[in-house]
Amino acid sequence: MAHEVADFPCGPLDIYRNKASFNWKDMLCFLDGEEIIAFKQHLFKTLENDPLFARRPGEDVPLEKMRELTFLRAKQLFRYDFLTKEEVMANPWKTITLSDCLGMYDWALAAKYFLNKGVSMFGATIANSGSGRHSKYVENTEDMTTFGCFGLTELSHGSNTRAMRTTATYDPSTQEFVINSPDFEAAKFWVGNMGKTATHAVVFAQLYTPDQVCHGLHSFVVALRDPKTLLALPGVLVGDMGKKLGQNGLDNGFALFHNVRIPRENLLNKTGDVTPDGRYVTPFKDPNKRFGESLGALSGGRVSITRMALVNLKLALTIAIRFSATRRQFGPKNTEEIPVLEYQLQQWRLIPYLAAAYALEHFSKSIFMNFVEFQIGQMMREKSDRQAEMGREIHAIGCSSKPLGSWIAQRGIQECREACGGHGYLAMNRLGDLRNDNDPNCTYEGDNNVLLQQTSNYLLSWFHLLCCVVSDGVRIESPLHTVDFLDDSHKILESKFTARTMEECMDSAVPLAAYKWLVCFLLEESQKRLEQEMASGKDEFEARNNSQVYYCRSLAMAYIEHNCLQRFHELTTDMDTPAGLRPVLSKLCALYGLWSLSNHMATLYQGNYLSGRKPTELVQMAILTLCSQLKDDAVALVDVLAPTDFILNSPIGNSDGQLYKNLWSTVMQGSQVLERPSWWKEFCSDKPVVGSLRPKL
Amino acid sequence: MAHEVADFPCGPLDIYRNKASFNWKDMLCFLDGEEIIAFKQHLFKTLENDPLFARRPGEDVPLEKMRELTFLRAKQLFRYDFLTKEEVMANPWKTITLSDCLGMYDWALAAKYFLNKGVSMFGATIANSGSGRHSKYVENTEDMTTFGCFGLTELSHGSNTRAMRTTATYDPSTQEFVINSPDFEAAKFWVGNMGKTATHAVVFAQLYTPDQVCHGLHSFVVALRDPKTLLALPGVLVGDMGKKLGQNGLDNGFALFHNVRIPRENLLNKTGDVTPDGRYVTPFKDPNKRFGESLGALSGGRVSITRMALVNLKLALTIAIRFSATRRQFGPKNTEEIPVLEYQLQQWRLIPYLAAAYALEHFSKSIFMNFVEFQIGQMMREKSDRQAEMGREIHAIGCSSKPLGSWIAQRGIQECREACGGHGYLAMNRLGDLRNDNDPNCTYEGDNNVLLQQTSNYLLSWFHLLCCVVSDGVRIESPLHTVDFLDDSHKILESKFTARTMEECMDSAVPLAAYKWLVCFLLEESQKRLEQEMASGKDEFEARNNSQVYYCRSLAMAYIEHNCLQRFHELTTDMDTPAGLRPVLSKLCALYGLWSLSNHMATLYQGNYLSGRKPTELVQMAILTLCSQLKDDAVALVDVLAPTDFILNSPIGNSDGQLYKNLWSTVMQGSQVLERPSWWKEFCSDKPVVGSLRPKL
Repeated sequence: MAHEVADFPCGPLDIYRNKASFNWKDMLCFLDGEEIIAFKQHLFKTLENDPLFARRPGEDVPLEKMRELTFLRAKQLFRYDFLTKEEVMANPWKTITLSDCLGMYDWALAAKYFLNKGVSMFGATIANSGSGRHSKYVENTEDMTTFGCFGLTELSHGSNTRAMRTTATYDPSTQEFVINSPDFEAAKFWVGNMGKTATHAVVFAQLYTPDQVCHGLHSFVVALRDPKTLLALPGVLVGDMGKKLGQNGLDNGFALFHNVRIPRENLLNKTGDVTPDGRYVTPFKDPNKRFGESLGALSGGRVSITRMALVNLKLALTIAIRFSATRRQFGPKNTEEIPVLEYQLQQWRLIPYLAAAYALEHFSKSIFMNFVEFQIGQMMREKSDRQAEMGREIHAIGCSSKPLGSWIAQRGIQECREACGGHGYLAMNRLGDLRNDNDPNCTYEGDNNVLLQQTSNYLLSWFHLLCCVVSDGVRIESPLHTVDFLDDSHKILESKFTARTMEECMDSAVPLAAYKWLVCFLLEESQKRLEQEMASGKDEFEARNNSQVYYCRSLAMAYIEHNCLQRFHELTTDMDTPAGLRPVLSKLCALYGLWSLSNHMATLYQGNYLSGRKPTELVQMAILTLCSQLKDDAVALVDVLAPTDFILNSPIGNSDGQLYKNLWSTVMQGSQVLERPSWWKEFCSDKPVVGSLRPKL
Repeated sequence: MAHEVADFPCGPLDIYRNKASFNWKDMLCFLDGEEIIAFKQHLFKTLENDPLFARRPGEDVPLEKMRELTFLRAKQLFRYDFLTKEEVMANPWKTITLSDCLGMYDWALAAKYFLNKGVSMFGATIANSGSGRHSKYVENTEDMTTFGCFGLTELSHGSNTRAMRTTATYDPSTQEFVINSPDFEAAKFWVGNMGKTATHAVVFAQLYTPDQVCHGLHSFVVALRDPKTLLALPGVLVGDMGKKLGQNGLDNGFALFHNVRIPRENLLNKTGDVTPDGRYVTPFKDPNKRFGESLGALSGGRVSITRMALVNLKLALTIAIRFSATRRQFGPKNTEEIPVLEYQLQQWRLIPYLAAAYALEHFSKSIFMNFVEFQIGQMMREKSDRQAEMGREIHAIGCSSKPLGSWIAQRGIQECREACGGHGYLAMNRLGDLRNDNDPNCTYEGDNNVLLQQTSNYLLSWFHLLCCVVSDGVRIESPLHTVDFLDDSHKILESKFTARTMEECMDSAVPLAAYKWLVCFLLEESQKRLEQEMASGKDEFEARNNSQVYYCRSLAMAYIEHNCLQRFHELTTDMDTPAGLRPVLSKLCALYGLWSLSNHMATLYQGNYLSGRKPTELVQMAILTLCSQLKDDAVALVDVLAPTDFILNSPIGNSDGQLYKNLWSTVMQGSQVLERPSWWKEFCSDKPVVGSLRPKL
């Protein structure tokens, strides 16, 4: 297989490529496998060969043009139809690979495509929340007769989904629902595809029966625009929100509904339906449970976002590490200047993020497989306790993996930008777009900080069992085993940091053990804090709010960092992992673990897991030593993660390492680069008379 | 006086404004003083009343247009001539105020104006490095006969200024210098104003005399473009670098010189001159000292950048805090939703940055005054040891205050963006521009991490004296007193954290004492580490490089954080500070100190300054309590820092607090907001046949 992966062109990066301790093609095969490598190559080549996907690094494209181009490209993707439903069923990972590859090209395009496409958002919501009568909408997305979007968020409400104010009132006389926005604050807002292109929306609204009883939030298919003219339908005020910080190829929009009538059948009726004469019927007795189900369609998104953020981090690291390996600045006296990657400081700024990227690579794949397992259970209509329990656990994972991934990526991209100095500030090198396009990962599908509360609530729900472990012999075990170690909580809390040398410390078992202690400690402390707050007379709402900072929030982060490290640690110690790759993977794993852990040192001291001067010194020296050992592997490690140069689209990150040639030639290809400005006469005529406008004070 | 400052319009922000513990107008008067308040009001009103400065939040302006507009506005600023030289001499702070106010409007405009203007960069370099024969250039910038730029950086060299490769070879036969770029890697690069508009540049080049001796880097005035046509002059390849991540109103550019001839007199000859017959003459004997002088003109920039970053942070905080005070989400059962500012998590995310902004407000002013004192000494041609020592100290301050300010601002703006959720991601709300425009503050005039080495080198130079304090009774004292406390180093290193209650901990004296210990500890550790490295056979270059992470770099940061805290602490305990303001300032000071310090907790434990569980708990509880006490003051505190709504240009940050009304009306004023896309026919015609382009695999 490996022979099918092309070698990189010779050049300045060879110095590092030749020093790598492992074969990068073996690593690629190990991580991706032959089928995925071939699929990626096919995707990359197809886009590169299609003139519609041509672009120039750093070009200045007006908003309207960017949206047009993205639309045309999305349309072309339907023609390519890279993945059939059968292929997805045979290998679900291919959906993620497709998303990865499109996202590496442009996240706005990936979003525009997937928001409409049957397997995701609009289509998926209808498939999950609707019934047979709605399948036409899903089919119509495939040839773009229908272009869909997903309308939940309103101008004045995001996180608090229950507080949405759009109404859907049933009128039995015509057997229609009347969709209405009480005022502009209830306008649907931020909806991707709604700004310019969507013909239909899934709209979440409070369902009212004729008896004026509100049955809570339900989803409805509402036509927005005439597909023949793209003009808004009567009663619909729909438009474009304007420029965003990034992803401007995607047209986010708003809609206000003035008593828009839709057929009764357009209610997505899985969780509740209205009979023709206006009676509400539901298979659920508990309205809370129904509400949970109707938002259930949103799960999985967060697992995907974890991966999306990682993709951005990989791109940024590819750029920054290739740059650092070829940019030379200063050096020992009377010698050639040395690559900036040789500096301790530069290594420490970048290589831990590289380790994090490898950790997240395995983690994001592994939790996706967990999610697939869960989904299969849902499709089988599995009603077991285990299935329900798995649902809770995957929810806790997704609500913290998204913050973990999106924040590491956001900080990592910023560090890469700064590490490339001025050249990192040039738009053509793409670090700005990566930062701007990654940013919403911290916000959509739930603000990171708000989501973390879901995870800590899940963990706290295990706390009362913890007390029974010793007394009643209860075992703590969850379907995905992310909390099983809590079973040993009592023993773990008595453990201490035991490494005595730096070499000992360079084993990922060391940070892993520390993380287990950390999670147990923070769980106990968070519970104590909550109890104190309740004891002082606060209600639960307030008590929870006042236990977030330093307690529940830290707990959720420690839990997911532990889990990410745990899975990576298992991979590096697995005998199926090729022996030639295990040494470098082990170093990456240890570095990721120690570096993550170093944010929690104060807590480790506070709880007396660490004491004295030695541990900090050992951890710090181990981090620096691992960085220095990995710097010769760094270029090969990003070669594994990098897409083709066409997709990467960053002159300073090009695989040939011809940093200045690529940069210079891209600058010289800029439009009007050497021309005088079109407004040159403004310069030459009408010189300002200094102070001529200065008022007498 | 206070009666001249207008009240804010009534509205949703009144809830918090009425709860404030202090009078915001008193605070404004205390911080700015009457003269500066009047000057700011005049500036803001002038810009608002001039149609040339009109703009729409979030508008999508093409690059070429943005550069044109910025040029026209810069030209208009010359007509306004807001500050005469006499006014600057009478009150140097007015220059900073002018820069603040222009920057609040748009940093690209401020940069374009000041890069040319006599008091700064181009003009200042000529004034400082040239002599009488160059004054015409300075004068010509005033009516824009000359438009200047400052060309130091080259494509392949930035930080390592000595390695610049542009040459200036003297030809006695014509009494000219021949300016030449050996190849494109030596092209001048990143030069602000050079892209489209500069007619002249100060170019740094290696000076060669006819005997082929290189005399090192010197600066020369080189004409680039014909001021009548803006066409490049023969031999000059000058152009625009293209789009940047931000500040796109400013045209950064490049220039390659092909044996361009300039008169001998265009050498800026303060530090060295060439006689008509080609002999090099210099008042300096030591070429290193000459090099230092010729870059000396750069000092002061870093002090200004500290302030520029702060201005960005103030704007972002104004937006995020007014948003948080009016955005309501969730609440206790059966009550109205509560403002998100009421949540502990939101307070903890934003209010420490607000405290940092107040700390930096005083700090940036105070170090500017230090710099002015130093500059006056230079103008007086003061040659005393104290003047030289002050130069070193102000250099150490500037090299760390810029990293401190720019990083706090960068992180703070990102936190503000996230804290405003999706609405923070809308371009019209300006948080993206602020992040993008602030970003280069981390890079220009020296990469933050590289600059910090200058500061740690300065501190390490004091170390050997430290050993003599006890034995020889030597006193450590620096002109600006930032290192005086090292005199007590031995005693300080024996001190411990002594606060026993949270109330005790809420005094800024507590973090201040901890910082003193921290600086002493890190100084000693850094020196040890350096010595170890040298002892193990490394040369000085390598030894220094290997002592940066966890040692020298942390030392430099701790030093400047201490200094910033120290100055703020003095202000809050000064009897001249109005009694009505002291309580809130003291809280801000304590919060800033504790929050900054919390990044160093591991080191404090490591060195046994802290031990046991209590100190972390006290510090954390003190931070949360201070945040919660300050939340009712937060709106009034940003009211003090905020510019007018026209300048702030952010619907969600408007002073009337009408969050949704402002947001909605700005969206509705967008261009083509409700129109179907110009390319609507692309949607309706030529539907994709799914898979029609799918290749047979």
